[in-house]
Amino acid sequence: MNPIQLFDAESSTYTYILAAANGEAAIIDPVDRHCERDLAHLRRLGLRLAYALETHAHADHVTSSGRLRELTGARACAPSGCGIAPAEVQLEDGDVVRFGGEEVRVLHTPGHTAGSVSFLWRTNLFTGDTLLIDGCGRTDFQGGSAGDLYDSVRDKLFALPDETRVWPGHDYRGQSVSTIGWEKRNNARLAGRSRDDFIALMAALDLPQPKMIDVALPANRRLGLVHTV
Amino acid sequence: MNPIQLFDAESSTYTYILAAANGEAAIIDPVDRHCERDLAHLRRLGLRLAYALETHAHADHVTSSGRLRELTGARACAPSGCGIAPAEVQLEDGDVVRFGGEEVRVLHTPGHTAGSVSFLWRTNLFTGDTLLIDGCGRTDFQGGSAGDLYDSVRDKLFALPDETRVWPGHDYRGQSVSTIGWEKRNNARLAGRSRDDFIALMAALDLPQPKMIDVALPANRRLGLVHTV
Repeated sequence: MNPIQLFDAESSTYTYILAAANGEAAIIDPVDRHCERDLAHLRRLGLRLAYALETHAHADHVTSSGRLRELTGARACAPSGCGIAPAEVQLEDGDVVRFGGEEVRVLHTPGHTAGSVSFLWRTNLFTGDTLLIDGCGRTDFQGGSAGDLYDSVRDKLFALPDETRVWPGHDYRGQSVSTIGWEKRNNARLAGRSRDDFIALMAALDLPQPKMIDVALPANRRLGLVHTV
Repeated sequence: MNPIQLFDAESSTYTYILAAANGEAAIIDPVDRHCERDLAHLRRLGLRLAYALETHAHADHVTSSGRLRELTGARACAPSGCGIAPAEVQLEDGDVVRFGGEEVRVLHTPGHTAGSVSFLWRTNLFTGDTLLIDGCGRTDFQGGSAGDLYDSVRDKLFALPDETRVWPGHDYRGQSVSTIGWEKRNNARLAGRSRDDFIALMAALDLPQPKMIDVALPANRRLGLVHTV
């Protein structure tokens, strides 16, 4: 049971639609400029959106969760540590979001940001910007911490079965999906690297400030509803 | 059970990977420049490629089926009416391709080209350029025929259950998946249109010759192995 994977070429962001047999659905990390595209998918597939889920407060694009909530009646879910106050469901580690007989389990995986979470649905893991295919998210803003990311990946994500499919929040090289087993053995940043080495590697990246952070972060903390409080 | 959907931004082509529980897999309409990307997916997911399937001889991109066959030992399958002689499996209407307990049924759906087929896997239909989301393929070369396309869609594809998911060979507007039910009711070219009206509509499109046809078509008839016979 794979999700439906949708892509935003501008920010290289993946959005996912998870469909239950009864027609209820959840969407993970929807992007504002694709709100109509995503609604079109729900219409064509005869799906009713039950939940819009955020893995974290994004710095590189604006969410459409608030708008999707207005248009569909879905409930908005965001990690409790991300300062996304308008989300009516504040997600904690271990929480389970249920719709149409499906279960999405919340794993608090701090590191990219302090509040970041991953979602586990059946044998599919949605890692946001925590674990990417052959890489990982940056750890230098919003309470990010290379040590925390290392611990999150090693203790929570790499503890999952090898065959667990990894669906990242971004990919910049045209890749779509991986597995926990492959990332454990091959991930260029994390496989076979000590915690101290990983922290040094991340500190040396010296990345520029995300171009959109000053716009995107405040907007995402309002679920993308830019003109309302 | 959704396929894994991969995209070529240059030609807006979708490639699909179908995975069986035992790790065997099939790939539909792979693109030459993404051969390494597709192999990387197979490696990461621990899949063994059993079959490379072509919906038709493409005019807008070159297949990697021949190369994938060389590199993985997969068998190449192409519609018998498409002149793709090097494919060891020449597909006829009603044929079933089997791998790892999965079945892919061949539906001959002429119209975009005379030999075009669609593939049915579980409740997923891979339509190549026959039926697109809210559209259809052009019908003005390679034995294409608007009347044939109309008949193929009406008699074979729209006869499938409404909930059948439609995975097209291309999309030019960022859409990924549809359903037979939605296309029957809403497809801009085909829903509620008579056969004669559809033929007139297609004749009036007056499309330019595909830019790559003189390169792509001969190459695809050699499974993309451009430098061999």
